[in-house]
Amino acid sequence: MGAVDGGLESLFDPASVAIVGASDDPAKWGNWLARGALSGSARRTVHLVNRLGGEVLGQGAHQSLAALGQPVELVVAAVPGVALAGVVEEALAVGARAIVAIPSGVALGPALARRVANAGTVLLGPNCMGVLDSATQLQLVPEAMPSGAIGLISQSGQLAMELAGFAAEAGLGFSRFASLGDQALLGPAPLVAMLAQHGPTRLIALYLEDFGDGRALLEAACAARAGGTPVVLLAAEPGAAVARAALSHTGALASGEAAIAAACAAAGIHRVRTPRELIDVADALLRTARPRGRRMAVVADGGGQGALAAGLLERAGMPVAPLAARTRAEIAALLPPAAAAGNPVDLAGGAERDVATFARVCAALARSGEVDGILISGFFGGYGGYGAAIAAAELDVARMLGALAHEQGIVLAVHSMHPRSAAAAQLRASGVPVYGEIERAVGALAALAHDPPADGVPALPPRAAPVAGHGYAEARELLQAGGVPVVQAAIVAPEAVVAAAERLGYPVVLKALGNLHKSDAGGVALGLADEPALRTALEAMNERLAPQAYSVERMAAGADALELIAGARRDPHFGPLVLVGAGGIHAELLGDTAVALAPVDTGGAERLLRSLRIAPLLLGARGRPALDLQAAARAVAALSQVAAAHPELAELEANPLLVGRSGCVALDARAVPSSEHLTNAEPGV
Amino acid sequence: MGAVDGGLESLFDPASVAIVGASDDPAKWGNWLARGALSGSARRTVHLVNRLGGEVLGQGAHQSLAALGQPVELVVAAVPGVALAGVVEEALAVGARAIVAIPSGVALGPALARRVANAGTVLLGPNCMGVLDSATQLQLVPEAMPSGAIGLISQSGQLAMELAGFAAEAGLGFSRFASLGDQALLGPAPLVAMLAQHGPTRLIALYLEDFGDGRALLEAACAARAGGTPVVLLAAEPGAAVARAALSHTGALASGEAAIAAACAAAGIHRVRTPRELIDVADALLRTARPRGRRMAVVADGGGQGALAAGLLERAGMPVAPLAARTRAEIAALLPPAAAAGNPVDLAGGAERDVATFARVCAALARSGEVDGILISGFFGGYGGYGAAIAAAELDVARMLGALAHEQGIVLAVHSMHPRSAAAAQLRASGVPVYGEIERAVGALAALAHDPPADGVPALPPRAAPVAGHGYAEARELLQAGGVPVVQAAIVAPEAVVAAAERLGYPVVLKALGNLHKSDAGGVALGLADEPALRTALEAMNERLAPQAYSVERMAAGADALELIAGARRDPHFGPLVLVGAGGIHAELLGDTAVALAPVDTGGAERLLRSLRIAPLLLGARGRPALDLQAAARAVAALSQVAAAHPELAELEANPLLVGRSGCVALDARAVPSSEHLTNAEPGV
Repeated sequence: MGAVDGGLESLFDPASVAIVGASDDPAKWGNWLARGALSGSARRTVHLVNRLGGEVLGQGAHQSLAALGQPVELVVAAVPGVALAGVVEEALAVGARAIVAIPSGVALGPALARRVANAGTVLLGPNCMGVLDSATQLQLVPEAMPSGAIGLISQSGQLAMELAGFAAEAGLGFSRFASLGDQALLGPAPLVAMLAQHGPTRLIALYLEDFGDGRALLEAACAARAGGTPVVLLAAEPGAAVARAALSHTGALASGEAAIAAACAAAGIHRVRTPRELIDVADALLRTARPRGRRMAVVADGGGQGALAAGLLERAGMPVAPLAARTRAEIAALLPPAAAAGNPVDLAGGAERDVATFARVCAALARSGEVDGILISGFFGGYGGYGAAIAAAELDVARMLGALAHEQGIVLAVHSMHPRSAAAAQLRASGVPVYGEIERAVGALAALAHDPPADGVPALPPRAAPVAGHGYAEARELLQAGGVPVVQAAIVAPEAVVAAAERLGYPVVLKALGNLHKSDAGGVALGLADEPALRTALEAMNERLAPQAYSVERMAAGADALELIAGARRDPHFGPLVLVGAGGIHAELLGDTAVALAPVDTGGAERLLRSLRIAPLLLGARGRPALDLQAAARAVAALSQVAAAHPELAELEANPLLVGRSGCVALDARAVPSSEHLTNAEPGV
Repeated sequence: MGAVDGGLESLFDPASVAIVGASDDPAKWGNWLARGALSGSARRTVHLVNRLGGEVLGQGAHQSLAALGQPVELVVAAVPGVALAGVVEEALAVGARAIVAIPSGVALGPALARRVANAGTVLLGPNCMGVLDSATQLQLVPEAMPSGAIGLISQSGQLAMELAGFAAEAGLGFSRFASLGDQALLGPAPLVAMLAQHGPTRLIALYLEDFGDGRALLEAACAARAGGTPVVLLAAEPGAAVARAALSHTGALASGEAAIAAACAAAGIHRVRTPRELIDVADALLRTARPRGRRMAVVADGGGQGALAAGLLERAGMPVAPLAARTRAEIAALLPPAAAAGNPVDLAGGAERDVATFARVCAALARSGEVDGILISGFFGGYGGYGAAIAAAELDVARMLGALAHEQGIVLAVHSMHPRSAAAAQLRASGVPVYGEIERAVGALAALAHDPPADGVPALPPRAAPVAGHGYAEARELLQAGGVPVVQAAIVAPEAVVAAAERLGYPVVLKALGNLHKSDAGGVALGLADEPALRTALEAMNERLAPQAYSVERMAAGADALELIAGARRDPHFGPLVLVGAGGIHAELLGDTAVALAPVDTGGAERLLRSLRIAPLLLGARGRPALDLQAAARAVAALSQVAAAHPELAELEANPLLVGRSGCVALDARAVPSSEHLTNAEPGV
């Protein structure tokens, strides 16, 4: 990592840069990047290289890197794909510490990649859009980007441009930007680690399509957040096809978006879904403190806007609760008689009489201690249109609101019908984010109020010896050995079923082995009370399924018991994930599940169980007895440890996991090896 | 309604208008409205009235309406609240057919309201912002609003102004606008009915806080939609307090947002939550046809934007499925080698070489018949910045895309990083909506693709004789008499419990009567197998609850049976609503419920049941037997009929409703009279 670290500084603040492919043609990358590079020539030596030599952009161009006759710290290859390998070779030859590979549709080749890595040279791309450092005047991107406090790492150049547009609108910009491209060598994790230490960077924004070594990325993000630099991730929601490829319920329920959410929760990453949302959340994170809680007040100069804002806040999990009588009275005294001094507060013309009403009401709310944040919605920013005196007063109010937020430790956000007004600009300068749509203001407040807790990225246990087989028996043994209680069973040939039931004692459960979804195929018979019932079920299964073996099991008792699903899945990027959920058929139908990075300890497992919507059934609700939450948590933690120690398993599942008043037991078990998973799940579409 | 109809034309296209309170002071409503009125003086006589007389805005002002010496069709009262009643009296005296009452914080008084109604005069307000008709040059609003095809009815003036701003950005505007204010006399229903018949109005937009006679509004909206005029409703999401006020599970689950959603579904109304969303949806509804289905293609000139768009579409219920090999090949032939011809389609530089690539790819997609809509995302609109020739080509492509949509019956929407470009304007003019954020484009497409079906507003049955009491026995009888099967029970004094159980046969259920939530208080004992078990339960309840009576009931059998909740609630605005959901304690925890306007017939009840997430449990899934869906639907329909015929009941509930393989039975019953509801639920906070 040391080499990479040094290389990264060469990528962002080189003493010399060479643009290979520099061009006078204003439709070419070599032109845009050369012009960008020259804009920093006060700080560093800029070499232009063009195989024809001559003059480019009024400066002498060299015919090759070798022709420079001196080392170059950063080489930008703005050349056709076929020429890339040659430029990289040349760059290594002149001792480049960093290379930016622009062309798309070209692979570096393993041998050359190895040589670059061995040289300790950092290579960004190929198929990337360049690199930017606002503080060092390094502008190796095709279009100017606003400067600011956001460190941006993006796998899409065009998305970076869209983000730049939204950032400029919000008065924000970028400290450093790296366009990842194909990540042939440099992935996001070292860049995140670097940005976390980079003074001008106060927030890290990521757009990723390939998470690469996801755990390393999460660890870097977690460290950044712990150091006070929030991380915001923009990523596409994985499509339905991802879940369809899974072989167990856990596989379907813990993949795609659920996996990303679990990863973000562990690392304390803010997850966003669109470029506008990324900038909106960054706007709030950069300008304001975090609220102490989720209690919100709405202050609107239109009753309709107040009602809409309150409804949206509550929908987003932020209560807009009635104020205490004393606070209501204090606010009412500041407003016209027709105003609503509750929550939302409707100024009802109060601000038209005196725009400072906004500041007075917000001050009263902040003093009350009854709310953690205030959302102002409506016309603020437009009052200035009524004349110079009002415009000056409105600017004063904007300053007062900013001061209020800082002094009282309260979070303020403004939705304004005039987001490009001078008062809006003053609000931003004073530390209050302003949004042109109410839903954006609410979304940003929600991101602040639901600041991800950063549970931490759990360490992986040592790898255990791979399991010998992946049948039902092996899955049962694996769980049991790992500390997950599994129902008593006898796995026997068809002719030994009745004797096995005799030994176990009725009632029993009969399972035909060998099917993927036993219960779907009618391969499970529950509650067989006596031998005749067992024989009837056995004959029916023999006839229909003709299995080689059966499992005869004790019928688990427990009228009050609750069926859960517990499982684990190995994500190709984020590693092992653990899942708990409402069990049995409810698992799929209701999707009441919780997912976390594995392994979890008992405390972590308990937090997952408590986050389920059916948690009250575990804890005892409506006269029901409390169930053994601790036993369930121990079983889930044990399963997660087993899964984490067995990277050869793609999926591992205890479903159902029956939780009773005392203890819990897995009634079924399933292990899916990675190889089988790949074979079955990717049928070469 | 005849009088109102005529009055409404006087409100929007009067031959004469008088502004009472007309003023030269540019900070006064009387000034803004007088100037607006005078802008239409080519079409109608405009009288200005000011009690001081003299000259206003360069025109002679009359000291009173009476002083005009002639009838006036429309009178606008832009006067202080205290003067309103006098102006209304005067207006009636001069034969006004319509009155617009501006002042806030003033009530009309019942006697005067009656006189206005009896005169057949329409009165808008008070506390309103005025009225506008773009076609008749009637501009009685404080600020200019863009003209267009949206008929807007808003209970908030400032929200109307915010909508006007967003509409202008989208190249949209208003045909007619009425600011409802306090709705002293005129509510939204007659205005919706009028707009449905109004030629220049192609879409009706509503912002409402008070739905007034909700059923009348829904019927008007339903008729508008049937006549081809879509209706979009903006309303605040009712807060958590609404649900807390309910006394039964049904009351909580079928109130607030669920009630609004049921109302919108019945009337085919598009429900939106913010002003921007209202205009975005209107933009799509006004410019495009409805898609034939929900299958979407994404065409992006950036891979990142394509992936984000596809993820958002799938999340919104619109599949972005792989294309057939033939279509992929056809598209691949139009693109550079590195491009992704799947779905999403990534042009990968194809549009940079030739911007017409957009049109060619979209044409191939439209011809394929594999998709119902196309979302274009990215840089389109920005290519024109590269030179005049490309700008002209981009405009051509915009026209081609519009023509494609119309000829192929495919829906097109564009997310552009340059939404204010000439090409974006040309797209809009060609019938393609353009959005500056990807989430807005996806939201608008979702609104089109999930076009509400307009089930219709059910007629209410004749009112039945009110029930005598509201205890458990009466609730059981009411349901049973209405056709809902109810479990066999004996309601007896404590000392008669054992004998009653003897008669019914064991196992039995024992319920202590008189509690709100019997199961919470431990007042229900299930599965009492014999007399000792019954006696134990009875003694425990006697000691703890000391009820006056018990219900002894047959323990319903059915290992495969499913517990549902069925209930009805009378909404103060929308009337009776019926609810079905996952039963028992799951009802609250999982919120898997469906709500509709009541009554429903068996078909409507079945549709509700099939819409539940647990519906597969009813229909037979994973080897489970199919349950008696028809019996459940009959019971739900019967319950909805009973509730609709008993307006004195606030809530009526069969919970649980146990559905077996053959038949279903209500295991508990509850009826809450409106009076009790009011007494208990509104404790004067």
